[in-house]
Amino acid sequence: MKALIVSADGFEDSELLVPYYRLKEAGIEVTVASLSRGVIKGKHGYEVAVDKALDEASADDYAILVLPGGAAPAVVRKEAKALEIARSFFALDKPVVAICHGPQILISAGLLQGRRATCYVSVADELKAAGARYEDQEVVVDGKLVTSRQPADLPAFMRETMRQTGL
Amino acid sequence: MKALIVSADGFEDSELLVPYYRLKEAGIEVTVASLSRGVIKGKHGYEVAVDKALDEASADDYAILVLPGGAAPAVVRKEAKALEIARSFFALDKPVVAICHGPQILISAGLLQGRRATCYVSVADELKAAGARYEDQEVVVDGKLVTSRQPADLPAFMRETMRQTGL
Repeated sequence: MKALIVSADGFEDSELLVPYYRLKEAGIEVTVASLSRGVIKGKHGYEVAVDKALDEASADDYAILVLPGGAAPAVVRKEAKALEIARSFFALDKPVVAICHGPQILISAGLLQGRRATCYVSVADELKAAGARYEDQEVVVDGKLVTSRQPADLPAFMRETMRQTGL
Repeated sequence: MKALIVSADGFEDSELLVPYYRLKEAGIEVTVASLSRGVIKGKHGYEVAVDKALDEASADDYAILVLPGGAAPAVVRKEAKALEIARSFFALDKPVVAICHGPQILISAGLLQGRRATCYVSVADELKAAGARYEDQEVVVDGKLVTSRQPADLPAFMRETMRQTGL
């Protein structure tokens, strides 16, 4: 099984690293995609190798999409290819999990209309404006969409993320 | 079930946070103990609340002991109470898992004589000098002792750590 993490410089380190290591612990192959190959750097200075440029990534190849938070989603949401990838996961009925600012990418992709979701507190207004039914919970599961608010929610976020993988 | 993490300022952030969130994901209550109550700060700036001073912690209350790396073990290994806690886990035949510089605490506690173990590459010489049978592997399991080398080993480290909890 393969998982795709889409992020960029300024990611919230724990929100990328915890899913990254957790998925690998379960034997899942993890691909990190970003604007270009090389390395992305988190807010706390962790560096993560980028396996694929967004242009090289296809939802067909992955069982689940992971969208960490931090400052990265503000960059990623401006990339048409990133929005196309997110839309493809939804169209293929594959799980998409997003935490903190990660749901901003789904907002820009127009995927949250009528969906139950959560996000970082400062993102709540635009989540609602995008037509989502916002809930202030550590994790909100709406079908194959899993969202959480912040790093402290990672235990619940990963519990539901792993459930989505079926492992 | 309860887990005890013993660390101090200068911890390697991912080596504390990944086990912390992973154990909580599994429904395990996690207590962080350090030299005093308050907050400890990692090398990358993450702050973690300290639930108990070392003097307040007893191996009797926990199912597993976790020793993250970074610069923290150099401080923790000088604390007699920390060494006493580690010895108690061994005496009670409870699992002890240590990564990176974490095994330094077990070296100072005199617990590695004749045991198979690994650690961060720069710690290998003193591990051997302490009588351990050093192996350059991502994870070494010797009975209820689990050791790993570095952050990249976290998937294997957590797989064996979770196996030790029986969950």
